[in-house]
Amino acid sequence: MSYDLIVIGSGPGGYVAAIRAAQLGLNVGVVEKENLGGICLNWGCIPTKSLLKSAQALEYAKHAADYGVAISGEIKPDFTAMVKRSRGVAEGMSKGIQFLFTKNKIDVINGFGRLIDKNTVEVTDATGSRALHPAKNIILATGARSRELPNLEQDGEKIIGYREAMTLPKQPKSMVVVGSGAIGSEFAYFYQSIGTDVTLIEYLPNVVPNEDDEVSKTLERSFKKMKMKVLTNASVESVDTSGELCKITVKTKKGEELIEAEIVLSAVGIAPNIENIGIEELGIVLEKGKVKVNEFCQTNVDTVFAIGDIIAGPALAHVASAEGILCVEKIAGLNPHPIDYSNIPGCTYTNPEVSSLGMTEQKAREAGHEIKVGKFPFTASGKASASGQKEGFVKLIFDAKYGELLGAHMIGGNVTEMIAELVVAKKLEITGHELIKSIHPHPTMSEAIMEAAAAAYDEVIHL
Amino acid sequence: MSYDLIVIGSGPGGYVAAIRAAQLGLNVGVVEKENLGGICLNWGCIPTKSLLKSAQALEYAKHAADYGVAISGEIKPDFTAMVKRSRGVAEGMSKGIQFLFTKNKIDVINGFGRLIDKNTVEVTDATGSRALHPAKNIILATGARSRELPNLEQDGEKIIGYREAMTLPKQPKSMVVVGSGAIGSEFAYFYQSIGTDVTLIEYLPNVVPNEDDEVSKTLERSFKKMKMKVLTNASVESVDTSGELCKITVKTKKGEELIEAEIVLSAVGIAPNIENIGIEELGIVLEKGKVKVNEFCQTNVDTVFAIGDIIAGPALAHVASAEGILCVEKIAGLNPHPIDYSNIPGCTYTNPEVSSLGMTEQKAREAGHEIKVGKFPFTASGKASASGQKEGFVKLIFDAKYGELLGAHMIGGNVTEMIAELVVAKKLEITGHELIKSIHPHPTMSEAIMEAAAAAYDEVIHL
Repeated sequence: MSYDLIVIGSGPGGYVAAIRAAQLGLNVGVVEKENLGGICLNWGCIPTKSLLKSAQALEYAKHAADYGVAISGEIKPDFTAMVKRSRGVAEGMSKGIQFLFTKNKIDVINGFGRLIDKNTVEVTDATGSRALHPAKNIILATGARSRELPNLEQDGEKIIGYREAMTLPKQPKSMVVVGSGAIGSEFAYFYQSIGTDVTLIEYLPNVVPNEDDEVSKTLERSFKKMKMKVLTNASVESVDTSGELCKITVKTKKGEELIEAEIVLSAVGIAPNIENIGIEELGIVLEKGKVKVNEFCQTNVDTVFAIGDIIAGPALAHVASAEGILCVEKIAGLNPHPIDYSNIPGCTYTNPEVSSLGMTEQKAREAGHEIKVGKFPFTASGKASASGQKEGFVKLIFDAKYGELLGAHMIGGNVTEMIAELVVAKKLEITGHELIKSIHPHPTMSEAIMEAAAAAYDEVIHL
Repeated sequence: MSYDLIVIGSGPGGYVAAIRAAQLGLNVGVVEKENLGGICLNWGCIPTKSLLKSAQALEYAKHAADYGVAISGEIKPDFTAMVKRSRGVAEGMSKGIQFLFTKNKIDVINGFGRLIDKNTVEVTDATGSRALHPAKNIILATGARSRELPNLEQDGEKIIGYREAMTLPKQPKSMVVVGSGAIGSEFAYFYQSIGTDVTLIEYLPNVVPNEDDEVSKTLERSFKKMKMKVLTNASVESVDTSGELCKITVKTKKGEELIEAEIVLSAVGIAPNIENIGIEELGIVLEKGKVKVNEFCQTNVDTVFAIGDIIAGPALAHVASAEGILCVEKIAGLNPHPIDYSNIPGCTYTNPEVSSLGMTEQKAREAGHEIKVGKFPFTASGKASASGQKEGFVKLIFDAKYGELLGAHMIGGNVTEMIAELVVAKKLEITGHELIKSIHPHPTMSEAIMEAAAAAYDEVIHL
């Protein structure tokens, strides 16, 4: 059967592209070697958020007395139940994708996909048998995997990646997490909060190093308050896994330090899955190890598109989905606008949560902007007081000349939900004063956004 | 001492007006007969949200096992501790206002304020002594109180209003709540969730009757699921408080019903505080029982302004604050824009939460719009699944011709925070497609907004 479109990979880039294509009348096949939904649904966003919800429920139970809830007995994390719930949520979501595919008459082709020529995908199934599938257009949405460092080679048992980290057979007593990006920080937070002794190691001077400095410092303080050991400006020299505990040699500014831990979680980034999918054979151009595409995610081979973690830009599920929709709409002959990569929200679902978009203060200044910065701490928010979430703040950065919103940086309760307002605001080119005059409901955490804008213009009320 | 501005009342209208006025260089006095912060801070928004947070903590503890948290002993609400926490939060906020007033050099004049002439306020203090305070301009921000119905006269013990409801000496075993607006519904939810047997009585066919029909039905279902008794199309005929329990005669479509309960909470609306403040003496014009003002909150007496619950428009804290800022900026000679009353968010902090702005489907059709409606249920949201909050939906209403956002109606977890995005969207006159193309972070509840917009245009991915 010949397809209008074959998508290789059914993660949040691929499955969304496939559904949008079917909506637009294209005849679509999706090649998947594992579970529908890819890493995000099965081993990423969704199951981790489920685990983090369990951690939140545990925190509520532990602090129940603060809210006037009396618990007489013992409160304990049931690690197995947490993992089971997380797997159940992931399975449910994956089945949901199957349902959507059936509804949209999208074929699933099980196996590993490879480009044979610009209009043919070869799929090798689990038994090794191969089939050729012709298609007018092809989208590569093969995603990424945990990056391996030479001195931190994953054995899947003692030195693990994010996959193993969410399905460990039992809760470890101690864990070293290497890398404090969103994945590393979320796992470090999760395990520390359920009682594992966590050491978080970051090579750069700050945890969540892509975030605003003050956000990073606040998260680090919060981590330390929960008794996590945080080592910044530190790198893992070697791991000795021969004994019962791993012996991790860490180089810090103060010298070498030896740490023992049951498990080492490597969260040092991801590597795009671009091997053995026909990229070299077709002469598809790479740039800095990723597939080079134009503003509509089209490669140098006109029928082949690439989206998500294998192209430049932030490796985030929502970006992959947006890219999937973009190139499908282009293929279908619509007139979509290219993605504005200056307006991509990023979230870290620790407690406190972290979210941001656009430029940090430093980057805005480096880009030549004269800026106005407004910051509003949740200590001054009525809703935050009422709900016991006074940690953190909202920081907004405006261009001083035109009032344009350049960046937003938040840490605190619920900020992963609050950032969407600023995505819309930035998309519609809001000015500081328009944001100040947007009537936010009282009492909400979201008022802090209005107040941060007001702070930038010396009109803040509650500071 | 002569003031540039005297504000009568220090609720969210008055105190915000005073602070903004001080920022703009005005010399400000605020007359307050009770605690700084008015009803909202002391007896409304803030302490109720604190109680509701306690209810949430209790729900988490009760459902801890669902999330993999093992609790061996008994889980009980400690009503006294909940009330104490709530009062503590309110007191802290009130002290915060005192701090802001001191910082902004705003005088507090303790006592009851009354207009003597267009430039003089008479203040009677607790001892009965009177003083006259001249002012160039005066803002009436006297707020409202619980409305009393003749057959539901409050005695403060058995038939109570919202004030008593948040400081009861002990948790009642049973309670009848009359009126299911935001205040009634929040208390009904709070008491039912901590174990009181609640009957909620609503005169109109729906609970939260100002909301979208489907939202109301969903909330009613949720209330009933928690074993609350909900009577709609019902009215209280009489209450007999002579015995130990109140005997409440309720008229329903099926006939009369007799209900017994320890406490009756009257939440049948509010009455503006416009008595004895000099309105008649100065010839200030009323309309439908409220003070008539122009688009800058100015009364027919040019030096006298009125804001908040004593003028037309929704009686909401954030509206009062916006009106306070508006008339102060006008007084100070700035050029503020009048408030767009079609873009005011309203929130009810039950679980599930309710939020909305703009027109319902019905009102949009009545206003002559041809509409496109998009609805996205949280059952289809990954974040909702991961966090166990699958109840509810987002519904968006667009004008079919121009794509203008006319209304937003939501019920579910966190929707009181999500509505701010739509305030900004509507303020900037977003179109449906601009909302669809705003990249929301994954996984969040806020994605449901993008998906609801997409549903209106047959582009929804996850349905």
